[in-house]
Amino acid sequence: MAKPIEFWFDYSSPYGFLASEKIGEIAARHGRAVDWRPFLMGAVFKVTGTQPLVDVPMKGDYTRHDMARAARALGIRFTVPAGFPFMSVGACRASYWAKDRDPVKAQALMQGLYRKAWSEGGDISHPGAVVAQAEAAGFDGQEVEAAMNDAAVKDRLRAEVDAGMAKGVFGSPFFFVDGEPFWGHDRLAMVDRWLATGGW
Amino acid sequence: MAKPIEFWFDYSSPYGFLASEKIGEIAARHGRAVDWRPFLMGAVFKVTGTQPLVDVPMKGDYTRHDMARAARALGIRFTVPAGFPFMSVGACRASYWAKDRDPVKAQALMQGLYRKAWSEGGDISHPGAVVAQAEAAGFDGQEVEAAMNDAAVKDRLRAEVDAGMAKGVFGSPFFFVDGEPFWGHDRLAMVDRWLATGGW
Repeated sequence: MAKPIEFWFDYSSPYGFLASEKIGEIAARHGRAVDWRPFLMGAVFKVTGTQPLVDVPMKGDYTRHDMARAARALGIRFTVPAGFPFMSVGACRASYWAKDRDPVKAQALMQGLYRKAWSEGGDISHPGAVVAQAEAAGFDGQEVEAAMNDAAVKDRLRAEVDAGMAKGVFGSPFFFVDGEPFWGHDRLAMVDRWLATGGW
Repeated sequence: MAKPIEFWFDYSSPYGFLASEKIGEIAARHGRAVDWRPFLMGAVFKVTGTQPLVDVPMKGDYTRHDMARAARALGIRFTVPAGFPFMSVGACRASYWAKDRDPVKAQALMQGLYRKAWSEGGDISHPGAVVAQAEAAGFDGQEVEAAMNDAAVKDRLRAEVDAGMAKGVFGSPFFFVDGEPFWGHDRLAMVDRWLATGGW
C-alpha cells in the first residue's frame, strides 16, 4: 500500500481550507489516502520572523481578493470568518485527540471544523464550537471538552507542531508526497503530477 | 485593440523569470501584447517588512528546491546565478531607457538579460554585463553605459517603482489583466482563464 499524502494545515488558513476541499479527490485518483495534520502557524511565524499574509502591508489586500477569487475558480463555497485570523489551538487539540480514537470520525470532525469556519464563516476559536462539531462527527461532547484541557493532549499537539517544523513545514497548506514537499494550494496540480509520475 | 497585459518583475526573481518564459505565449493566444515592467523588490521589502524568500528561515531551502522543480515542470532551462539574490538596478535602468527608444529591441534586451541570469547562471549585476546584452539586442553600448548613470534615467526607474507600488505590486512576477491583479508564476493558469472569460 502506497504511503498516505501528508496534508499539514492551519484551521485559520484560507488556502489550507481550499486545499482541504480538493486533496481528497486528487489522492483518491492515485489510490492514496490523506493524513490530515493540523498545526499552528503561530509557531512558524516565530521562527521565520513572518506574520499572517493578511497582516502584511500591500499583501493583505491582495490576499483577501485572491482567496475569494481562487475559491470561485474552484467552485468552493467560501466565507471569511469575522474573527479571521483566529486562534485554532482548541480545534487542533480536539483533532489529534479524535485521530487517536477514531480516524474516520476524526476526518469528519476536521472537515466539519474547516467548513464551519470557511464555508459558513463560523467562529471555531472557542471550545463550545469545537465541541459542537465533535458531537456532529459522533464524539462525546464532554469527553472532547475535557480533552482540550488535558495536559497529555496539549503535549501531543506541541509534539506534532515540532515534528512538522522539523520536517520543514512553514506554511499552510503543506504536503508531502513520498517525502517530496509542496507548499500552497497552488501546488495541487504539481502534487497530482507527482503522484502520477513519481517525480521529474 | 485590447490592453496589453502588464508584467511586473524583478530581474533577481526566479519565479519572475519562469513567468517571463510563458507569459508571451499565453498573451498571444488571446491576441494580447505584454508590457514588460522591471522593478526593484528591494523597495517593496522596505514597505512590507519582508525579505527575499531565500533569506527567510525554512522557506529559503524549500524555495531553492521548488524553483528548480517548477522550471523542470515547465521545461525551462534554469540555473541559479552564483550571486543570487543580486542587484538589478543597472539592468532596470537600461531596460526603461531602451523601452523609450525601441520597444522591440528593448523586449529582446529584457529577455536576454533574464536568460543570461537564469538560464545561463550569468552575472547581470554589473554594468558591463548589461552593456553586452544591450549590444546583442542592437543598442549602442556607449549610449547604454551613459544612460545607466543619467539622472533622468535614474528618476524614470524611481517613478516606475513608485507607480508599481501605488498600483499594489508587492511581488515578482505580478500581472494586471484589464486591471485585475495576479501575483506569482503559479497564477498563470488563472491569467489564462481570465483572458479567456473576462473574469469569474
